[in-house]
Amino acid sequence: MEKGNQTIIFEKSPVIIGTYSIVGPMEGKGPFGTLFDHVIEKPEWDEPSFEKAECKMHRHAIIHAIEKAGLDESDIDSIISGDLLNQMITSSYSVREFDCTYLGLYSACSTIAEAMTIGSLLISGKHFKNIACVTSSHFCSAERQYRYPLELGTPRTPLSQWTVTGAGCMILSDKGIGPKITMATLGKVIDYKISDVNNMGAAMAPAAAHTIITHFKETKRMPVYYDAIVTGDLGKYGSELLLKLLKDAGLDVASRHFDCGAKIFGDDEKKYQGGSGAGCCNVMFCSYFYNKLKKREINKILFIPTGALMSKISSLQGESIPAIAQAVAIENME
Amino acid sequence: MEKGNQTIIFEKSPVIIGTYSIVGPMEGKGPFGTLFDHVIEKPEWDEPSFEKAECKMHRHAIIHAIEKAGLDESDIDSIISGDLLNQMITSSYSVREFDCTYLGLYSACSTIAEAMTIGSLLISGKHFKNIACVTSSHFCSAERQYRYPLELGTPRTPLSQWTVTGAGCMILSDKGIGPKITMATLGKVIDYKISDVNNMGAAMAPAAAHTIITHFKETKRMPVYYDAIVTGDLGKYGSELLLKLLKDAGLDVASRHFDCGAKIFGDDEKKYQGGSGAGCCNVMFCSYFYNKLKKREINKILFIPTGALMSKISSLQGESIPAIAQAVAIENME
Repeated sequence: MEKGNQTIIFEKSPVIIGTYSIVGPMEGKGPFGTLFDHVIEKPEWDEPSFEKAECKMHRHAIIHAIEKAGLDESDIDSIISGDLLNQMITSSYSVREFDCTYLGLYSACSTIAEAMTIGSLLISGKHFKNIACVTSSHFCSAERQYRYPLELGTPRTPLSQWTVTGAGCMILSDKGIGPKITMATLGKVIDYKISDVNNMGAAMAPAAAHTIITHFKETKRMPVYYDAIVTGDLGKYGSELLLKLLKDAGLDVASRHFDCGAKIFGDDEKKYQGGSGAGCCNVMFCSYFYNKLKKREINKILFIPTGALMSKISSLQGESIPAIAQAVAIENME
Repeated sequence: MEKGNQTIIFEKSPVIIGTYSIVGPMEGKGPFGTLFDHVIEKPEWDEPSFEKAECKMHRHAIIHAIEKAGLDESDIDSIISGDLLNQMITSSYSVREFDCTYLGLYSACSTIAEAMTIGSLLISGKHFKNIACVTSSHFCSAERQYRYPLELGTPRTPLSQWTVTGAGCMILSDKGIGPKITMATLGKVIDYKISDVNNMGAAMAPAAAHTIITHFKETKRMPVYYDAIVTGDLGKYGSELLLKLLKDAGLDVASRHFDCGAKIFGDDEKKYQGGSGAGCCNVMFCSYFYNKLKKREINKILFIPTGALMSKISSLQGESIPAIAQAVAIENME
């Protein structure tokens, strides 16, 4: 590719041969509740801590995605994984249970797109045959780490989002039947100097716009090429901003745009802007969108998970929020 | 490759065309002090916080590695980066200053090997031309985050290691002169149920042994093939354990083994087992080993950074320490 290009075209496009999604009770009560493979009844899921419950969900998603793909654990070459907890303990403590190589990634809530990209590189390059891409988040462990322990009952602001409790896992393979990952447009770190950690949608919208504009410019595709343009978790306000930024750049995607964060909880006002977290857009892809692709109700998706790259320390030190968005094209080939 | 293989052979091996290392004052006083490109005089480096000082080092390493490689920032397609701070703020806040795509990785102190592997995949697959791989750590920010704030003056245990203050950056390219990355052996997450967070060498040695044994088995190479077998930061005691584990498996590497952590501070008793941290083996590679490769004093290195994948939370919850080691072969080709 020429320098300046952020888009990778996979010569040998990997097939997504199976997916699995597991979510918490609140997600189960939302409009997509019946589509998830498993809904846990309580956030603790019989574990002594929320971190251990998150780990159990992560592991559960991997085991059952492999099973749903018709494979055995011994068929998996590598697990590519990430999560939001400090030092990514959900990923590393889950993966130690599997006899596979491991690549740990962190780009906050956009991690699943990075995992799909690197998994596709490994399969397209004929290095590996089957790869599990997995991410998760948990409302209770995320609140404790990023904000306040739940026990304090701290009020939320109108622009805040609600971290999704959920884990999604997809199996990429060098053969089989299913939609394929054909391209990835890597993102740049964009900082619009938003410093309100309760308004991540505003921090992430410019990064999403940048990656989407770049994708269409470099691939010479038009928005109508895709049946759905699916962003990660900009939330309701962040989605409005994205559409405005894209319109200013001459791209009208309103009719085919879907933001996983804005939709996952439906119109539940107590969830404010909607969902977020590394599990949010992943569980939506692994259920609702994967089902639609398999049934050929839609055939081409541009999937753009978004991530806010701050930490509690950086916010306390007065820093703004850098953000990133990685885009992946998933297509049913004829 | 056949299933069961953890080793990737890069068809088009990327060239390491330039490196840059920057370290803190203690590292500068060590036996390799004169080999580093830059030694900062004070850990704060004129910044208002240790985190911001680490970020400045990280950024400085990227800027100067690009310069030393004879390139311009606009030549760099992607920055692949990781660090030890929560939510990897060193990486994301550094990278926002550059107009390049970004891939964030986390595998603790073994992150640089993961970065070299993914960078090599991107170049070998002809997707990108020039990539910066960078990692860092800072003693003062790491102590505050993983253990206790320095102000408390907490005593250290005999098996503890000293997080290296330093950042290293290497530029991988599809052309140019220099040693090449020919192979990578991905690691598995190995947990020997060590739960003493002050004894990371013991937790990481089995992971290093596993990856090294796998590398020799899969490549059918013998230890004599390499001029140096360089582990990350097992420290003095961890290195002894590694040599014992390898000897039990029939591999004698004692004469060519070098552990960056055990050596970086020389025999300074106050550093106990030696150095650690995502910057440790990276600054050693970017200075001492890269110089030796360039001068052809050595021609073949197996580089095996090691990582301990725990967090403060997992330790407090009584968990043991899972570990990983990724191996990368770097060779001067005739």
